[in-house]
Amino acid sequence: MKIKIFFFGKTSEITEREQELLKRIGFRSEVELVCLPQAGLQNRIKNQQKEMELLNKKCVQKEFLVVLDEGGREMDSIEFSKNLKNWLVEQGTVCFVVGGAYGLADEILQKANIRLSFGSMTWTRELARLMTLEQIYRALEIDGGGRFHK
Amino acid sequence: MKIKIFFFGKTSEITEREQELLKRIGFRSEVELVCLPQAGLQNRIKNQQKEMELLNKKCVQKEFLVVLDEGGREMDSIEFSKNLKNWLVEQGTVCFVVGGAYGLADEILQKANIRLSFGSMTWTRELARLMTLEQIYRALEIDGGGRFHK
Repeated sequence: MKIKIFFFGKTSEITEREQELLKRIGFRSEVELVCLPQAGLQNRIKNQQKEMELLNKKCVQKEFLVVLDEGGREMDSIEFSKNLKNWLVEQGTVCFVVGGAYGLADEILQKANIRLSFGSMTWTRELARLMTLEQIYRALEIDGGGRFHK
Repeated sequence: MKIKIFFFGKTSEITEREQELLKRIGFRSEVELVCLPQAGLQNRIKNQQKEMELLNKKCVQKEFLVVLDEGGREMDSIEFSKNLKNWLVEQGTVCFVVGGAYGLADEILQKANIRLSFGSMTWTRELARLMTLEQIYRALEIDGGGRFHK
């Protein structure tokens, strides 16, 4: 069982809280936070294309892909926990992708196995990354019978 | 126009990012983050009752009340921005309430003018507070024509 979280930015952005969550997640599953550089192009489409190329180099075709997308599917934390466990057991590795400042290319959204939504609101990429880590931690705690989820 | 955000916890929990957001929000509206102590009771209902009493002492009856509730109404950031502006103009002061570890008493949920949802998932009270500040900042930037919301 392995969880990879891809994001666009710099490793220096990773906060103490995120480091702590990675450590806690690590007690339940192998986990890796993978930093990809932001394309930094002004044009939204070109930026998305460039970031897609970077992602495709790092993310193997056969891996199970979960992309964060505000237009995607919402699930509550219990349902997400059950799903995450199933994906890990069935697929071995689950890759989460948090888009950059200009969002993800349509091809990535279409290629994804799951488009996961954290509600209708728009979140910064930094906060979306933290939210992803918090939910993965919560999901594994729920599955492991921890007392974190009340 | 004044925004108050009530939360249960300690002022020492307020992160640098939250301080930064408060400062930025402050350029567009008067803003206050009000810390109430957590009741710290084991029993969920008693805990909620105690925290409700604390809140009622601080939150004036006539103020417009927005409570964070995962079962509440979802809106996207543009819609939230329009609503927040209307509430501020019409009501003068808008109070947000982020529940404690055991959530908010039913009476508060029922008394609220708006129950606002950040999606179906459960968030920690610390993260919910940060998410609230980020959305308020984003909402005021959208309304003010800032370049933050892409």
